[in-house]
Amino acid sequence: MRFQAPESLSEQIAQHLGQRIVTGDLPPGARIQELKVAGELNVSRGSVREALLLLQRRHLVEIFPRRGAVVSRLTPELVNSLYDIYINLLCMLGRKVLERWSGQELTGVMGQVRELQAVIDALNSSGADATENVIEAGFGVMRYAYDLVENPFLEETLENFKPAISRTYFVALENFREELKATARFFRQLAEAATTDDPVRLEQVIRDFGEHQRHQVLSILGTGVNA
Amino acid sequence: MRFQAPESLSEQIAQHLGQRIVTGDLPPGARIQELKVAGELNVSRGSVREALLLLQRRHLVEIFPRRGAVVSRLTPELVNSLYDIYINLLCMLGRKVLERWSGQELTGVMGQVRELQAVIDALNSSGADATENVIEAGFGVMRYAYDLVENPFLEETLENFKPAISRTYFVALENFREELKATARFFRQLAEAATTDDPVRLEQVIRDFGEHQRHQVLSILGTGVNA
Repeated sequence: MRFQAPESLSEQIAQHLGQRIVTGDLPPGARIQELKVAGELNVSRGSVREALLLLQRRHLVEIFPRRGAVVSRLTPELVNSLYDIYINLLCMLGRKVLERWSGQELTGVMGQVRELQAVIDALNSSGADATENVIEAGFGVMRYAYDLVENPFLEETLENFKPAISRTYFVALENFREELKATARFFRQLAEAATTDDPVRLEQVIRDFGEHQRHQVLSILGTGVNA
Repeated sequence: MRFQAPESLSEQIAQHLGQRIVTGDLPPGARIQELKVAGELNVSRGSVREALLLLQRRHLVEIFPRRGAVVSRLTPELVNSLYDIYINLLCMLGRKVLERWSGQELTGVMGQVRELQAVIDALNSSGADATENVIEAGFGVMRYAYDLVENPFLEETLENFKPAISRTYFVALENFREELKATARFFRQLAEAATTDDPVRLEQVIRDFGEHQRHQVLSILGTGVNA
């Protein structure tokens, strides 16, 4: 693997390491050594330090004064804390969409949902690629909402939580084949609530799916497989 | 000014630059040049780059691929977006406190409020020091709530918004002497709602004060003094 384009070198390193953390290749608690990574990727130690700060911002690593960077843990308590704030912010995003736009103006969201459905229908096998495609299509709906709401702070905060949430989806989707159907159903219900101007229903749909995901992840963590 | 303690050098640089941004010494739109800062503070360019990433995380600077770092703007739209998410997260913090603790267990918050009142009573003149003391005492109440709620993601997200919020408080407190009284009243009402187990009232008190602050800041920005 080679890295280019100097201005975003630290971002590229962060993407590379982040992907390894999200998929579980770098497990919770693993130490990330600046010098080792710099040597492996043939980049400067300063670029790796900047990449680690980006990963810290995205809640994937913790940085300790003398011990350096460690892949952040994935305990039931941390999963609960993560889902609490993520669900809260998603509900805010949904609320703001309907405060600013009428259901009639939101028919574009149906296109996003159809796209997601097509991705899910095309899946013949589960596994890492399928999981990533579904996660990516789902996040497409969020990007659509960001453009409608125009709150850069909400967008940035949610974007910074996405990698940590992806890591938990990965745990759930790898283990539950039927999660794909639940995901498709969620986006259909979301679109229905949005296009019929129903903020109460919209918030309930978001909260229910968030709680469902939280429950799936917690039940798998409970088995100790990915703890 | 000298910087020591290598392990937190970038944090020290971030604090130094952050303070200059919050107080308006570095105004919105000002460019921050890595080499110039590195020379002035006699630190490496890498440390300054890391400090700028920390300030970006705290919503005080924006970093552009080729143009470098710029002090983030303070337009009415951005103030509105900032207060929307900040008020939402403060309400979540308050809700979580009362979900986990009874009013009887929260009498400690009254100590925090008395401390704040003492700070305000001791003020003989307005100005930067007074403003900073009041802001700091107010944030002490938030730290108390963090310990009760134990959600590291909520704490980190709110902490990262604090510098940007401080910057807007600075605008408001510098211009409105009576803001100190409004702040003291807010914390008294907050403590009353908490110790009487009233989550609806608690959320209302937080929302009202947040909206009051937002209004003050927007009315000052409207005069163009600090835009």
